[in-house]
Amino acid sequence: MEFQLNRNHANPLLQLSDQLQERIRSGSLPAGAKLPPVRDLATNLGLTRLTVHNAYSELQAGGWVEAYVGRGTFVAQRTQPALQSLHLPARSHADTSTPWISQGMLADMMRLSQDPNLISFAQAGPAAETFPVRDLGRAIQHALRDPAALGYGPTQGELPLREAVATWLLDRNVVTSPDNVLITTGAQQGVALVLRAFVRQGDVVLVEEPTYLGFIEQATSLGVRLIGIPMDEQGMRIDALRHVLREYKPRLLYTVPTYHNPTGICLAPERQLALLQLAREHNLTILEDDVYGPLAYDGTPPLPLKSRDTAGRVIHLGSFSKILTPGLRLGYLVAQEEQLGPLLAAKRSADLHCSPLLQRALADYLGRGQLAGHLRSVRELYRERRDAMKKALQRSCPRDVEWTTPTGGLCFWLALPPGINGADVYSEAIERGVGVTLGSVFFPQPPRSAYIRLCFAAQTPAAIERGIGILGDLLTDHLRRRDQLAARACRETEPLM
Amino acid sequence: MEFQLNRNHANPLLQLSDQLQERIRSGSLPAGAKLPPVRDLATNLGLTRLTVHNAYSELQAGGWVEAYVGRGTFVAQRTQPALQSLHLPARSHADTSTPWISQGMLADMMRLSQDPNLISFAQAGPAAETFPVRDLGRAIQHALRDPAALGYGPTQGELPLREAVATWLLDRNVVTSPDNVLITTGAQQGVALVLRAFVRQGDVVLVEEPTYLGFIEQATSLGVRLIGIPMDEQGMRIDALRHVLREYKPRLLYTVPTYHNPTGICLAPERQLALLQLAREHNLTILEDDVYGPLAYDGTPPLPLKSRDTAGRVIHLGSFSKILTPGLRLGYLVAQEEQLGPLLAAKRSADLHCSPLLQRALADYLGRGQLAGHLRSVRELYRERRDAMKKALQRSCPRDVEWTTPTGGLCFWLALPPGINGADVYSEAIERGVGVTLGSVFFPQPPRSAYIRLCFAAQTPAAIERGIGILGDLLTDHLRRRDQLAARACRETEPLM
Repeated sequence: MEFQLNRNHANPLLQLSDQLQERIRSGSLPAGAKLPPVRDLATNLGLTRLTVHNAYSELQAGGWVEAYVGRGTFVAQRTQPALQSLHLPARSHADTSTPWISQGMLADMMRLSQDPNLISFAQAGPAAETFPVRDLGRAIQHALRDPAALGYGPTQGELPLREAVATWLLDRNVVTSPDNVLITTGAQQGVALVLRAFVRQGDVVLVEEPTYLGFIEQATSLGVRLIGIPMDEQGMRIDALRHVLREYKPRLLYTVPTYHNPTGICLAPERQLALLQLAREHNLTILEDDVYGPLAYDGTPPLPLKSRDTAGRVIHLGSFSKILTPGLRLGYLVAQEEQLGPLLAAKRSADLHCSPLLQRALADYLGRGQLAGHLRSVRELYRERRDAMKKALQRSCPRDVEWTTPTGGLCFWLALPPGINGADVYSEAIERGVGVTLGSVFFPQPPRSAYIRLCFAAQTPAAIERGIGILGDLLTDHLRRRDQLAARACRETEPLM
Repeated sequence: MEFQLNRNHANPLLQLSDQLQERIRSGSLPAGAKLPPVRDLATNLGLTRLTVHNAYSELQAGGWVEAYVGRGTFVAQRTQPALQSLHLPARSHADTSTPWISQGMLADMMRLSQDPNLISFAQAGPAAETFPVRDLGRAIQHALRDPAALGYGPTQGELPLREAVATWLLDRNVVTSPDNVLITTGAQQGVALVLRAFVRQGDVVLVEEPTYLGFIEQATSLGVRLIGIPMDEQGMRIDALRHVLREYKPRLLYTVPTYHNPTGICLAPERQLALLQLAREHNLTILEDDVYGPLAYDGTPPLPLKSRDTAGRVIHLGSFSKILTPGLRLGYLVAQEEQLGPLLAAKRSADLHCSPLLQRALADYLGRGQLAGHLRSVRELYRERRDAMKKALQRSCPRDVEWTTPTGGLCFWLALPPGINGADVYSEAIERGVGVTLGSVFFPQPPRSAYIRLCFAAQTPAAIERGIGILGDLLTDHLRRRDQLAARACRETEPLM
């Protein structure tokens, strides 16, 4: 591969990156082609390895190439230009994910989070040892007494489950009727149905920044224009929201107000009221994702927006994946009567309906009141693990890394210091046997800093201590390397200037 | 409600229909508003009831209003203009169904097909008494021995099930690897994923005319331009396909080549080869829906297109809903390696993955080789029911109604004689206790004739005989009424001309 680098040009990194981009764009580097190893290209071009590495990182950030640990860097299958503007990226319908995180890396992350050889803090899921296997097995056998449980069922969901969900929601102070409940294949499908039913290509949708990756993926694949509302320690910033509402006419606002994923933050009660007020004023529909709501470790959890929604502006989304088991693939939406038509059409079109067998079994389980006891015991278990991670971070994590202790939910959120590459931390953590989630995947626009998310529920306190120890060492190494490399880079690029 | 009808105008029906449309368009008749009963409006306007009835029917056909048996006629929630052109209807992204069949009627049909008080021939589903409840129950208990069955799982599906599907497909002469299998929430999700992964708003997609309703719904909601290829008794007409391929660059062709839904027709072997040849020439991707393939009653079933697909043009779609039980909500796609990336992204975005518990249980059931024996017994049962429906139709159905006997699958397809309103037959059949499916829902463009679809699998021979007897009487009544009403309409509209 030959490049024409102008040695008088101030920025060899930019030259290299531009020329690689041009070759990918023109097809002379086709999708799937492997880029030369950093070391080889650096030697051939007389550049430092850091310069080539940074050029590759830049291409990766723009979605041009994909890097796989131990395999190398490859031209991405679906290349897409970098974002045009920070607030309103022009996205094509073909985008299926955050453009600065490649599909390959996402798939990688999903796969690795299930690798049994890792101490994985990657997946915001419950601990398998909490699954009430015997109770659910009994409920399934009970449901099987009626063969209709194996037949087709109503699109909206089995009535007994909708009744049980309406009853269960009273615990969250949400008063609704089974007629307003739609059973979904987990919360992910709930998100997908709401977007399909109410949002069109080009519409503006607001989200917290950062937000749930599954929402970004789905919205982006529909060609929606996502605008991130910044957060502080009290949740979504209402002043920023007000500002955005003055500029745009958003179709929808998606929020995780309670034990927010990925940050763990709760929206302050006065902000809840302000948000509902703004929704009324601007005729804005809010999709409230409450999947972590019941997982409170320090006192009772905040009430959901839906419990204060006197004007019917809130569609409420819940799931049994985090509080019971993900393997049932069951969640629910609570919507106004006039919203149900489009949601039901979207559900029918997506997969007709959820398994009546699993729905009836879950209804049976809920009907026996078994969820309350289950929740008491998982809250206790997860509180221990949350505390274990807090202690381990206090002990092992460099001071420059910022984090707070979540009062519920499943995750810690770490802000890495400037100059630390999140993707490198992610890759090297895996090499050292620890799985984390790269924070940038949760951003609708490229974040200015690097973050990682750590989920504590699925690991024992001992594994948490060990894993966080490894991660702490890694971050300490990175901070040291950052300072060394920065100094070296300054020295080595001088001759080219 | 006041109307200005010009008595000198040739067509009071058109005047009334136009003025109603105008009021709906302008919002003076809002969505949900009830239209006056036919009798009242006829009296007020000095028109015949038939004229008002026909004006309402025309509005209904255009998607302006929705009629509910026994409740009346209401302005539709999402009104949309009638189609612009026969071949390339301009559809908005907001359309979620065939525009000439209202959402209300579809929902109605779904609900009624599950009404236990009906002899329902509406749903193309298996008989509940065939469900291997005990075997599946045992397989589920077996799967529950590993709590991971209740956890998150891989997006592509559990490996043991993908292996079992690859093995099972050998029976259909399809040779594939588990790596090429993606597990879906039934065939409906398979359709949805392929469309989401490969088709964009405004793309042209080809289908048989008629075709599976779920495909039309999904494609229309994505803003796809559907072109129907007419069929004859040997399946899709290749001459018509050739003609269309000269005019358009379709993204995809969706076909049910074996025991086609709704007609029961099989694509002739020489046409299979011609279709594959055309796909190669035009770089066309074929989505082959084989959900009825194994349900053969007269000898061995035709082999699927995929078994002859040497050029990798065919994505193969299957499901366990028709041949085993719909309640597991499990189907599969077989795709080329390069197609899997976008399909997996679509699956993750839709609902992450299917229930590992149900997947593992089905893998266990398939691994024991239990499906072959099950299929032998259901084929025998459905053959009896097919024969019972054939005999009953021969006995009770008026000669003017055309139908053929399917050699496999689950449905008879009846072409009603000219002048018979399918929607009326549908509604009145329900009133008399028989559920059928209105044929027009299966058409991507408004059909010229009326059809009804009758599924035989879920009813006993005795119920089939009774139900078809009632339907035969109803059709006979309609034919008589058609002739009487036509004569009366001529007489009564004379004074206005």
